[in-house]
Amino acid sequence: MKKLISVAFCLCILFGCEKPVTTNSINVNDIAALTQAIKDCKPGDDIIMANGIWKDVQIEFLGNGTKDKPIILRAETPGKVTIEGASNLKLGGSYLIVKNLYFKNGHTPTKNVIQFKIDEKTVAMHCKVTNCVIEEFTQPNRDDTDHWVEFWGRHNELSNCYIAGKSNFGPTIRVRLDGNENVKNYHKIINNHFGPRPRKGGPHGETLQIGDSGTSMTPSHTIVHNNLFDRCNGEVEIISSKSNFNVFTSNVFFESEGSLVLRHGNYAKIDGNVFIGNDNSEFIGGIRVINTGHWITNNYFYKLKGLTFRAPLAVMNGIPKSPLNRYNQVTDVVVAYNTYIDCISPFQFGVGSNVSQSEVLPKSEIRSARAERMILANNLIYNQNPDNYPIVAHDSVDGVLFEKNILNSENKSGVTSGGLIRKDFKMKKLTDNLFVPIENFEDVYRGFDFETIKTDFFGTERSKQNAVGAMIVPVKNRPVLIDKKKYGADWFETEKEAYKPQTLQVSNADELKVQLSKANSGDILALKSGVYTIDKKLIINKNITITSLDINTKAELQFTSDSIAFEMQPKARLQINEVILKGNGNQDAFATLDKNMTKAYDLFLENVELDNFNSVLRVSKGSFADTISVVNSVIKNCNRGFLLNKEINDGGDYNAEFVIIKNTEFTDIKETILDYYRGGYDESTIGGNLVFQNNTVTNSGKLESDQILIKNRGIVNVDFSNNTFKNNPVKLIAVLWGEKDQKPVDNTIENSGKIEVVQNLKLKLMY
Amino acid sequence: MKKLISVAFCLCILFGCEKPVTTNSINVNDIAALTQAIKDCKPGDDIIMANGIWKDVQIEFLGNGTKDKPIILRAETPGKVTIEGASNLKLGGSYLIVKNLYFKNGHTPTKNVIQFKIDEKTVAMHCKVTNCVIEEFTQPNRDDTDHWVEFWGRHNELSNCYIAGKSNFGPTIRVRLDGNENVKNYHKIINNHFGPRPRKGGPHGETLQIGDSGTSMTPSHTIVHNNLFDRCNGEVEIISSKSNFNVFTSNVFFESEGSLVLRHGNYAKIDGNVFIGNDNSEFIGGIRVINTGHWITNNYFYKLKGLTFRAPLAVMNGIPKSPLNRYNQVTDVVVAYNTYIDCISPFQFGVGSNVSQSEVLPKSEIRSARAERMILANNLIYNQNPDNYPIVAHDSVDGVLFEKNILNSENKSGVTSGGLIRKDFKMKKLTDNLFVPIENFEDVYRGFDFETIKTDFFGTERSKQNAVGAMIVPVKNRPVLIDKKKYGADWFETEKEAYKPQTLQVSNADELKVQLSKANSGDILALKSGVYTIDKKLIINKNITITSLDINTKAELQFTSDSIAFEMQPKARLQINEVILKGNGNQDAFATLDKNMTKAYDLFLENVELDNFNSVLRVSKGSFADTISVVNSVIKNCNRGFLLNKEINDGGDYNAEFVIIKNTEFTDIKETILDYYRGGYDESTIGGNLVFQNNTVTNSGKLESDQILIKNRGIVNVDFSNNTFKNNPVKLIAVLWGEKDQKPVDNTIENSGKIEVVQNLKLKLMY
Repeated sequence: MKKLISVAFCLCILFGCEKPVTTNSINVNDIAALTQAIKDCKPGDDIIMANGIWKDVQIEFLGNGTKDKPIILRAETPGKVTIEGASNLKLGGSYLIVKNLYFKNGHTPTKNVIQFKIDEKTVAMHCKVTNCVIEEFTQPNRDDTDHWVEFWGRHNELSNCYIAGKSNFGPTIRVRLDGNENVKNYHKIINNHFGPRPRKGGPHGETLQIGDSGTSMTPSHTIVHNNLFDRCNGEVEIISSKSNFNVFTSNVFFESEGSLVLRHGNYAKIDGNVFIGNDNSEFIGGIRVINTGHWITNNYFYKLKGLTFRAPLAVMNGIPKSPLNRYNQVTDVVVAYNTYIDCISPFQFGVGSNVSQSEVLPKSEIRSARAERMILANNLIYNQNPDNYPIVAHDSVDGVLFEKNILNSENKSGVTSGGLIRKDFKMKKLTDNLFVPIENFEDVYRGFDFETIKTDFFGTERSKQNAVGAMIVPVKNRPVLIDKKKYGADWFETEKEAYKPQTLQVSNADELKVQLSKANSGDILALKSGVYTIDKKLIINKNITITSLDINTKAELQFTSDSIAFEMQPKARLQINEVILKGNGNQDAFATLDKNMTKAYDLFLENVELDNFNSVLRVSKGSFADTISVVNSVIKNCNRGFLLNKEINDGGDYNAEFVIIKNTEFTDIKETILDYYRGGYDESTIGGNLVFQNNTVTNSGKLESDQILIKNRGIVNVDFSNNTFKNNPVKLIAVLWGEKDQKPVDNTIENSGKIEVVQNLKLKLMY
Repeated sequence: MKKLISVAFCLCILFGCEKPVTTNSINVNDIAALTQAIKDCKPGDDIIMANGIWKDVQIEFLGNGTKDKPIILRAETPGKVTIEGASNLKLGGSYLIVKNLYFKNGHTPTKNVIQFKIDEKTVAMHCKVTNCVIEEFTQPNRDDTDHWVEFWGRHNELSNCYIAGKSNFGPTIRVRLDGNENVKNYHKIINNHFGPRPRKGGPHGETLQIGDSGTSMTPSHTIVHNNLFDRCNGEVEIISSKSNFNVFTSNVFFESEGSLVLRHGNYAKIDGNVFIGNDNSEFIGGIRVINTGHWITNNYFYKLKGLTFRAPLAVMNGIPKSPLNRYNQVTDVVVAYNTYIDCISPFQFGVGSNVSQSEVLPKSEIRSARAERMILANNLIYNQNPDNYPIVAHDSVDGVLFEKNILNSENKSGVTSGGLIRKDFKMKKLTDNLFVPIENFEDVYRGFDFETIKTDFFGTERSKQNAVGAMIVPVKNRPVLIDKKKYGADWFETEKEAYKPQTLQVSNADELKVQLSKANSGDILALKSGVYTIDKKLIINKNITITSLDINTKAELQFTSDSIAFEMQPKARLQINEVILKGNGNQDAFATLDKNMTKAYDLFLENVELDNFNSVLRVSKGSFADTISVVNSVIKNCNRGFLLNKEINDGGDYNAEFVIIKNTEFTDIKETILDYYRGGYDESTIGGNLVFQNNTVTNSGKLESDQILIKNRGIVNVDFSNNTFKNNPVKLIAVLWGEKDQKPVDNTIENSGKIEVVQNLKLKLMY
């Protein structure tokens, strides 16, 4: 805590704690008045937007305040000014402050919601956006690109904001460095709460990106301090640092499915951060290292189970003489005084080594350059259940010096060193997620410049009494690792009270329509036994469960509607249990909107019988299902099964994150059972998950022109086991991807095609 | 001058003007005593090496002084301690000073003469080598690599040294950045005189290289200030800056055949330097720009005639997403307040554009990325004779902003802009090479951060009265651009008095041997008429002219020696005028040593008749002729002509810089007339020069297996004109290289092969 205080104090000294002197309040009620007020603004002005909805407003806040007399633009009451519709805000000039605004129910008509630049000639300097909220202000089409906050200029700040729910293409926050006026920027991104960013199902879903490969040589000096990254699951990079001298201190990464990635650029400082995972997820990562000269110190990693790219510490192999936008070798990186609690194989080296793929990749893609002159020292690794593989070496680790790292499990990893020391020791749980050792291991390695690591995680001086690990004991007071109140806008409540679902009984088709329409998200529609004839598609745009009231005499929905039975709209979460669905052979059982699938949907079928549909699921380009789950069901007499195959531009995107089909019978499906496609050579996503287990497929694939029963081209994680295939007249049941450890397990095949394993898929290069 | 003083003052403040307090003098007479003294040394020690020759000594100066009490190692009398033979010096520790030593008559047995590192664990910090000389301390074999001074560690200094005459492979001075202890080094290279470095005939002949591509991302902060680069002709890069934030201020580049090249790395500062060319040389360059964020200000360019790569300002095209060791795009570079006097086409853009060579080069070698966001402003261009092409655009210059540049010639370059302003104005000559305008052009462009360009070339404040160009007038006092006394070691005289050649008469073969042996370099041997039978090879290891006393009855040398007539040794300069040379058909007329051709040689033949030799000239790998010139001569009845074809490893090296053959008759040469070879794709050299003019070649090439009469593979500059070829039974007379503007002009061909022009040679990639 002391440390937080002293850091805050230092920041205060460094950047000045503005106590703005405002002298002139200007109240504005509409965009015209606001525009005029901005046009006339002068140092000390306090422009106050009237409470209410400001719809379709594009604000250009251009002015020049002074350090002592900034110009302020703010809401009359914090949070009571909502910016909605096709709206955005640009800042240009100097010493401007924007505060207390709430962006929701809309999206930007340009490329940014908040942009620290008016135009090429007018960037912002010493400007601040604070105590604002941007919530689900996302583009209707996932494929459309924008950034919610785009930094230009120098010395700008985003602080105490809550920002969540971006589901379209493009990092949430982007720092731009093209042009001398934007380098050496010392921007501050501090005290924000970055709320959940849903899985995007493709690249370009970072929460923060600083620079890009084209500006990766620039000194950026962006400061990212004391933010909460809360379930930021957009892609494998939560933060993508792509410039030099960026500083990441005292942030909390909470159950975020990705890593802090030093993608381009050098000399990052990563100190005093917290990374929290859980028992379930292999997607929650730590820090991924590429390039030169980074110092990773005093960080605390808890329950991270991420593998390879998502390891707690993933040190990549580089490409020799790498192209500017690919992977430079890791050199001169220091990883010291970190603590890893209950993490699995926290240290992974040679990550991304792909020499074995030389036949399908050009030489300029082969990552064979191992880390050089890297130091791992004074780290503490503790596992309550032994982890005997603290290190995974995907290539030789001859360029890494290990010194005074202490671990409590036996090390069977094969990487041995006098600097990897096993000791029996105990940790003490102080508060939630926070473990510290009972005693200090004071014998530390003192490498070149190590004296610059002055304090521990909590700000205790290392010069007096030093110890291995992020924390020197005793720790004073009762520190709390995550106190959500410390982050985001003070007026905004991020924790909504949980809704208690209601069960609504339904007796006939008309009632079903009415109840579906008036149900709250989360409610359950319980169908009485009987046959329901549905003549119009049912629209799902919230969380709805449809079930039979009596599971022994299931309700049967007979669809006579045109083309679609259930229309899956953005945010739909449809769960159908114990129901029989019958089509007329022409409809698709489930289909998304053709466009504007703003947000992800989910579909769960359990103990469902589906009969006589065209496709079971048909989706549009740009649509994205987080989860599609089919369990204990029967699907028969359909032309096709699940079609998740519309992202065919080979840019790494795909139409669903998790596809789980278990204990289900497919009979008489004329074409493919499943077409689940991801094209392009990209590793920045989970990459799709297919579980196809314990299913029986019979008499299917007769009209399948590609002669493949189940298509999973480019999907990274595939479990294909214990299925039975009978009498399916196809050439191939499926093609699995050997390089991703895919293999068929215990499948029974009778009079069907075969399951092929291809080691290296030929992929289209994206870069 | 004011500026120099204030810069000196600032450096003093920044780095501290040590006034070392020494307390303990230790006199040492030999290496054993020296080694012991070093072993025992403590702060304040003053170790004094006795005057004399210290031969074959490897000194490891390891110690730790303090800022106030450094440890000194010095000569008893400045310059009277010579370090000779296989010797070197390593420094490690801190606050060490070495001074007044003289390295000559030898070479290092390791890779460095002076190395700021003892071993991997012991680098030097705050150490200084000052007032020393390294003169021709060059490796016997040109192909062996070394560096004369290699910087490691931080805060080290090379000052007031004279360093000249390196002719082997490797930069003279090298700053190494591999490892965190070597970055942010703030080394100072100041007040040195870098004397002549001869043409090397291949790459790796830089005078100073800071970093390399593999460390090009590091912050180096090396300071190169107030040095004289005096005819540093090693290769196209006098200085190769390959790291970030290097500073080049107030240096003089005098008639040096190369450029200050920003090869890798970014954000260099190049301010207040002087570049002096002459009327004759197209090889003397200015500044070549690659990468990002450099500021080039207040520099003065005089009489630079360099073309493309060697232009006064050469702005290169980059390779899109360049590999680490190739060419990044130029972005965000500022070139402001420079003055160009009597330079030809000073601004060249798109240099290195090679889209037209796509058929012979891989995509990763194609330089198509033009400069972006570059600013050229407030520059002054003056030509006494109009230069109507101030700009050469090898590609579009759409990414360059021109503002307030003033020139006195009409601009017919095709690149027009309101920022290229023609004015009639006059300049005034103040002192040698120094011209300033009569009046100030005060209307300057004020770009982003331009206020950081605080002073002009002479230190006059720009905030008070500003002007276009490097110098604001009036200039106080009478400034001198180049005062050689300001640079180098104070005890060392770089200007030797010119030797007045003697003419020694020779009557017979014995006398010839004797006189040749005792002649001083520069002397003339005048042969009386008659026939001289020479039974042993004549050794040439100095500057000798052999001529007939009476040109109407020429002396005739008949060689009966084994295998060689004249042996060309290092530093040979042989001029033969008006003499008949006859062989026995077995000797080579001229041949180099087989190895250890330490230094270049020259050969001039004028009005010479050569008859009945094996080869006219045979050379060894590693040998290098600066000039081979044959004029008005007759060469007949030989097996071969000139063989300059031993550098065949395709590393860009070659065996002669200039080959000039004019007005000469070749008759009955059985194989090739000339084989002059340079292999490998490299642009860092002059690239070889062939002038083959007004010659007659008859009855030659009969036994030439390649069927090519004259071979000039890979030679860059070729003039092939006005020759007559008769009855030569070959397929090709020569192959010329179209891309280098080579073409046959006015040759007469009878019953011989043809002259072919190949547009794009297929070259072996070196990188």
